Amino acid sequence: MPNGCWGWQLTNDDWQLTMIIKLERIKLQTRKTEEAIDITAQVDEVVQKSGVKNGLVNVLTTHTSSGLLVTEGIPCLEEDILTHLSRLFPEDENYHHRRYLDYDGRLGFNADAHLKSIIGGVSCTLPIENGKIVRGSRQTIYFMEYDGPLERTYLIQILGE
Amino acid sequence: MPNGCWGWQLTNDDWQLTMIIKLERIKLQTRKTEEAIDITAQVDEVVQKSGVKNGLVNVLTTHTSSGLLVTEGIPCLEEDILTHLSRLFPEDENYHHRRYLDYDGRLGFNADAHLKSIIGGVSCTLPIENGKIVRGSRQTIYFMEYDGPLERTYLIQILGE
Amino acid sequence: MPNGCWGWQLTNDDWQLTMIIKLERIKLQTRKTEEAIDITAQVDEVVQKSGVKNGLVNVLTTHTSSGLLVTEGIPCLEEDILTHLSRLFPEDENYHHRRYLDYDGRLGFNADAHLKSIIGGVSCTLPIENGKIVRGSRQTIYFMEYDGPLERTYLIQILGE
Repeated sequence: MPNGCWGWQLTNDDWQLTMIIKLERIKLQTRKTEEAIDITAQVDEVVQKSGVKNGLVNVLTTHTSSGLLVTEGIPCLEEDILTHLSRLFPEDENYHHRRYLDYDGRLGFNADAHLKSIIGGVSCTLPIENGKIVRGSRQTIYFMEYDGPLERTYLIQILGE
Repeated sequence: MPNGCWGWQLTNDDWQLTMIIKLERIKLQTRKTEEAIDITAQVDEVVQKSGVKNGLVNVLTTHTSSGLLVTEGIPCLEEDILTHLSRLFPEDENYHHRRYLDYDGRLGFNADAHLKSIIGGVSCTLPIENGKIVRGSRQTIYFMEYDGPLERTYLIQILGE
Repeated sequence: MPNGCWGWQLTNDDWQLTMIIKLERIKLQTRKTEEAIDITAQVDEVVQKSGVKNGLVNVLTTHTSSGLLVTEGIPCLEEDILTHLSRLFPEDENYHHRRYLDYDGRLGFNADAHLKSIIGGVSCTLPIENGKIVRGSRQTIYFMEYDGPLERTYLIQILGE
């Protein structure tokens, strides 16, 4: 049996059912300090390739200065999210994190990015039905870069049958 | 086999186990521009009817100007949530989204609603045990309308046995 | 069959597969009014003891004036989260919740704690692979106390095989 994938077949019947638990790590090179990157097509593709008919998909960033969120996919709104998160957490606030970090060998400088990550969120969970993610027609899945440009990794986990 | 529902029975034993993956779309007519609507009883009912004994339930809005969140179910707090999200994201801020949208044939006007949706969140995931949602005694599930009144749809997905 | 746990064994093969749905309630005594408590080791331990090889874990608080979030595990950032959530939702704002509550027999006084809980979030969902939680090297799971000191309970639910 492959890891994380199981199933069975009844010999006296013509149906076969396979439970699938699948995890994909997706790499992403961000290009700007702050950026909202539409990853919906990528998530759709991984769901489709997984063969899962019904279940759920969980998408999450593996970084603490980036995020994952679901909202309407239009450029003006992408700008509004980044602008207004920066209005709530300005780069030049008096953060405790703005000090020398021994373990990093450098000055902490991105408290605002961590706070945006927490407030905007780091993951989403959506249902899968008939092999497709169920979401509203305007719901777009975004990887949010708050501290780039960096090579980032996010996870897509699919669980279902 | 019904879609999204599977199980088996061992003939040499007296137990039967059924894995259930169920998805319900619930329609909701909101009545105000902004409104916190307690949907806990509705979610409880769908969980109970699903027959799932142990598993999880994921509830999420399908819209990008509404939300889904869990907090204490008292009217004064409902008002505080709406008031203070509006304090963080006033309707008359200088949003990029406040411009003519070709694809909509109208002026973008609800950037504040999208931002509230992102910040307050769009889904919740709760455990099911012995056929009931496990939650704290004061935890109430809310559908949050930030841009009504509208007919809205939210999803209840249940996965378990 | 134990509740919430099922599996089967094919006699004509050498593999055995067990689906596990497990729910743990963890008690936690907080010590301060506001506090970020690293619970990563505790969640790791529950996952390890569950025997689940592949699946997911959902962690959530059962209280509406506390939270659950994932971010970098460093003391200066813990302070920044608490300080800047308090900047967004000061204790002495003019909250509707600041009034006598019949059912509580006391004055509502913690609207700010509820708002921080909503905005910072109350749960996280992470994948499990090869018996371990999959997360970024800097991702730490925090129980957030916004209204302590109190005895608190949070839930760890594991679903997988």
